[in-house]
Amino acid sequence: MFTKLKRLLIGRPRKSHELAGEKLGKLKALAVLSSDALSSVAYGTEQILLVLITLGAVALWYSIPISIAVLGLLAILILSYRQTIYAYPSGGGAYIVAKDNLGVYPGLIAGGSLLVDYILTVAVSASAGTDAITSAFPVLHDHRVLIGLSIIIVITLLNLRGITESATILMIPVYLFVFAVVLLILSGIYQWFSGSIHPSATPTFGGGVPGISLFILLKAFSSGCSALTGVEAVSNAIPNFKKPAEKNAAKTLMYMGLILGFMFFGISLLAYVYGIKPKVDETVVSQIAATTFGRGIVYYFIQASTASILILAANTAFAAFPLLAFMLSKDRFMPNMFMIRGDRLGFSNGIIVLAFLSGILIVLSGGDTENLIPLYALGVFIPFTLSQAGMMKRWITLKPSRWYIPFTVNTIGMLTTLTISLIFLFTKISQVWTIFLFIPVVVILFKKTSEHYQNLADQLRIDVITEKPEIKGSVIVIPVSGITKVVSNSIGYAKSLTDDVIAVYIGFDDESIEKMERKWKEWNPGVRLVVVRSRYRSIVRPLMKFIDTIELKRDATNHVTVLIPEFIPKRWWQRLLHNQTGLLLRAYLFNRQDVKITTVPFRLKK
Amino acid sequence: MFTKLKRLLIGRPRKSHELAGEKLGKLKALAVLSSDALSSVAYGTEQILLVLITLGAVALWYSIPISIAVLGLLAILILSYRQTIYAYPSGGGAYIVAKDNLGVYPGLIAGGSLLVDYILTVAVSASAGTDAITSAFPVLHDHRVLIGLSIIIVITLLNLRGITESATILMIPVYLFVFAVVLLILSGIYQWFSGSIHPSATPTFGGGVPGISLFILLKAFSSGCSALTGVEAVSNAIPNFKKPAEKNAAKTLMYMGLILGFMFFGISLLAYVYGIKPKVDETVVSQIAATTFGRGIVYYFIQASTASILILAANTAFAAFPLLAFMLSKDRFMPNMFMIRGDRLGFSNGIIVLAFLSGILIVLSGGDTENLIPLYALGVFIPFTLSQAGMMKRWITLKPSRWYIPFTVNTIGMLTTLTISLIFLFTKISQVWTIFLFIPVVVILFKKTSEHYQNLADQLRIDVITEKPEIKGSVIVIPVSGITKVVSNSIGYAKSLTDDVIAVYIGFDDESIEKMERKWKEWNPGVRLVVVRSRYRSIVRPLMKFIDTIELKRDATNHVTVLIPEFIPKRWWQRLLHNQTGLLLRAYLFNRQDVKITTVPFRLKK
Repeated sequence: MFTKLKRLLIGRPRKSHELAGEKLGKLKALAVLSSDALSSVAYGTEQILLVLITLGAVALWYSIPISIAVLGLLAILILSYRQTIYAYPSGGGAYIVAKDNLGVYPGLIAGGSLLVDYILTVAVSASAGTDAITSAFPVLHDHRVLIGLSIIIVITLLNLRGITESATILMIPVYLFVFAVVLLILSGIYQWFSGSIHPSATPTFGGGVPGISLFILLKAFSSGCSALTGVEAVSNAIPNFKKPAEKNAAKTLMYMGLILGFMFFGISLLAYVYGIKPKVDETVVSQIAATTFGRGIVYYFIQASTASILILAANTAFAAFPLLAFMLSKDRFMPNMFMIRGDRLGFSNGIIVLAFLSGILIVLSGGDTENLIPLYALGVFIPFTLSQAGMMKRWITLKPSRWYIPFTVNTIGMLTTLTISLIFLFTKISQVWTIFLFIPVVVILFKKTSEHYQNLADQLRIDVITEKPEIKGSVIVIPVSGITKVVSNSIGYAKSLTDDVIAVYIGFDDESIEKMERKWKEWNPGVRLVVVRSRYRSIVRPLMKFIDTIELKRDATNHVTVLIPEFIPKRWWQRLLHNQTGLLLRAYLFNRQDVKITTVPFRLKK
Repeated sequence: MFTKLKRLLIGRPRKSHELAGEKLGKLKALAVLSSDALSSVAYGTEQILLVLITLGAVALWYSIPISIAVLGLLAILILSYRQTIYAYPSGGGAYIVAKDNLGVYPGLIAGGSLLVDYILTVAVSASAGTDAITSAFPVLHDHRVLIGLSIIIVITLLNLRGITESATILMIPVYLFVFAVVLLILSGIYQWFSGSIHPSATPTFGGGVPGISLFILLKAFSSGCSALTGVEAVSNAIPNFKKPAEKNAAKTLMYMGLILGFMFFGISLLAYVYGIKPKVDETVVSQIAATTFGRGIVYYFIQASTASILILAANTAFAAFPLLAFMLSKDRFMPNMFMIRGDRLGFSNGIIVLAFLSGILIVLSGGDTENLIPLYALGVFIPFTLSQAGMMKRWITLKPSRWYIPFTVNTIGMLTTLTISLIFLFTKISQVWTIFLFIPVVVILFKKTSEHYQNLADQLRIDVITEKPEIKGSVIVIPVSGITKVVSNSIGYAKSLTDDVIAVYIGFDDESIEKMERKWKEWNPGVRLVVVRSRYRSIVRPLMKFIDTIELKRDATNHVTVLIPEFIPKRWWQRLLHNQTGLLLRAYLFNRQDVKITTVPFRLKK
């Protein structure tokens, strides 16, 4: 039944050689990998204005130079990641680049930081989507957590079905959003030039602003940089592209940069010329759309597509997290299970773990994840910085012809992202201090995991020339509680394997012991019966002691096997009707003694 | 560590022969078994007044004749249960008496009804105790569920320690309560006679009351009968008494009846002569105590001991539930586990199940269990009725000398309890209708359980003369994923048992398959390697298919054993680092195929 439900939700399993068909073309890749980056357009400009408005409306004109600075940074990041794609055609996320050039620890910091960040992305996006839904239908406000979790479940199922299928479905909202914003910007600019817009109060461009400081400007700039989260997704996901993978990835990255840059600057420009101030209860994009089109059908189309792209931002993390986990686990820093491809050829375990952890975040925060946004932004800029530093090192080491050009690009990029990281740390320490907690924890977990696998390999290694399997003697112990078909079966099985079989009976009182001994003699199954008396009515402990004495008596070259008969009832609830002594015995023996345990099934027919 | 905590909370395990020392003397038995019955004094009178006050204060004088009627019923119940104790010296709860005389189904209805009732008792008492605590400390009001659960946990631990120890601790509050109420009644009566009490308005005794009807009087009477819940506890618990058990039990029952009758009528009388009306925010007992002693230290002593006896009412259920479950499970109507005596010789499983189920009730109701009280009262009177009917049948069948006297007692008892049950059904159907749901469900569960055990016994039975263990051939299958120490160990073990060993390798692609075959040839462990190709990256399914073919090829007289190596890591978290293929394999194989499964432990040293 579980299998049927799985097939219904996820589809039939795929053969391994179908993997090639699962690769992404540019159009689909853009949809799958850019939703996080593009969705930032919905709030990037607003973040800048929110900082500036603290100095009054006269300061709002600064949003234009700041937006241009953000565009510049975007250009640097795109160029820099383009270089990375060609340098690491098999997937060059911050983890790979930092590990390769700066060493293991910087790599692990970048990787751990990104992993945690993807979890935050999903939680924050699902919450943003929930907000959009509950704003439209306030009756649902009490069910925020449930709605957030449902969003995660739907995205998870789409991703478990496989990336191309989910890409086909996800293309629609992504491109609708791009179409909506471009339409908004073009119409807005046309109306501006045609002079049909009369903003209530246009701030003067270049006017003097009392109280302005470098700190405020930097804070506004760093807030605007939250529009750049998500641009790293493409460079992580190169293995998902159709061949030639690096070319397709590089092109996709460029398209994404152009679209993002155009939309971000367009929104910032319109916000300025329309004299829009950030409001508590209405977004900047909504204000621009309402001014341009009035609150008609076009307005609602823009709002709806904005809400859906915010939800879809989660999907970028669902594409990136499993891949990063795969790379970390290939390097033995994460458990093996992240290397296994599921029925539909996706890294199902990564998808499920991401869904589970972000779901926990939603539940713990009660669906209110706004406080996580600065942490989330910082968690992106740390790996950005490490990745750029790694590329700098690479150029210096390899010194290809004209290496100083890409080196300069990466140096500017590194300095900028480092500055932004520091600004985040200084201006929002109360919201981001936990990064000093979780990065060390994650890195330690990576190291411990790696050590464990190394130790394991050392202990399992064998010399095929000298080490051959060794044959020893064998004794089989059968705990019996009476004379039944089950016991008869077990003894038959044991005697088929060895002549050295001992039956053990644990008795609680003289009467039952005597009765058992008498009946055993009468039955005479050809096996010796040993009786142990238990004063404390425990079966497990006396049996463990008995096995200890067997192990001591015989020389250690003998294998000791304990046979445990287990009923398999016809219906699941019947399990409750049997004392799970067998299970308990298994658990105890297995953890304490060096014995083999054989479970002999006895299938009940009614 | 778990064992240490258990020792600390519950004490050292006891040897089976210490059981005799665990028996109860009369004084302790009264404390353990009467807290439920005695605690009813705290609300019995009030229940009557609450019905009468709907007709105005002039109707309150009816409380005196109604209380006398309740006393009469109490006397009948006590006499009737006294007869039962002598008739069933090994424990004569309603289940036994009804089953023995009326048949299995009436017995199961009585037993099931009582079991559910004990769960309700614990939930209702723990909630009443919580109310007492939160009334005193209103800040705790938001933690009602937590407090309720804590009360259950403390009582559970006391009971797990063993009945004599818990009796020693529980005697104190029970006897303090009896002392407090007797003190209150005697002082109250003294003050009444000395004329120092001036009630605001004494209702006229025997005055005409407009609107009075038989229905109202019956309703008031049945409400007053809630003071009688718990009197059956003694007759269920005869096996817990010191010898001579039945004499001690009968005496304990008489003492309990006398104390309960005296306290109940005393409170009713004082309530009447003091002209006390039921209030929403103060109990009748509190009003009497305040009038008699003023709100000084004696008043608070009475209130505190009332609160503690209400909590302790739960303890009666903890004594009775495990015993009833033991009897039902001895008759194969409940799982075996209820027959096992725990470390401290109590029926721990019954205690834990009761705590768990009542805890769930508390959580589900959010600590507000008042609606359950009528259901709880009805759940007592149904077994009362069945038990009395059973005794009637017994007298008719056995016809001892002068049988008509006890027969009359039981007939009056049966008719009264039947009437009360019907009144409950008619006057409070909205709160008690669920009884028509849960009694059939519980009875069906009993029957299904009984059938299962019967079928099991049939399938396990063996003829010791003709049926002897049968020796067959044996083949061992070892799934291998590479050539490691673990595989070498497993092969050595398998070859110690039989010469017929097959290693199976599940390969995902040509390259790894070829490599494995080559390495195997080089190693040459003396065992044939079979390679199976898996197109869907699954290990379990191809292996199952392979085992199917083995079972088909060989004749069915061969045992098939699958060896599954299992790592035992040094630290628990390291388990997460291994794919649990072994576990999955075990689960699949075990449920689908007729194979024996041997787990071979491989202990990791680092």
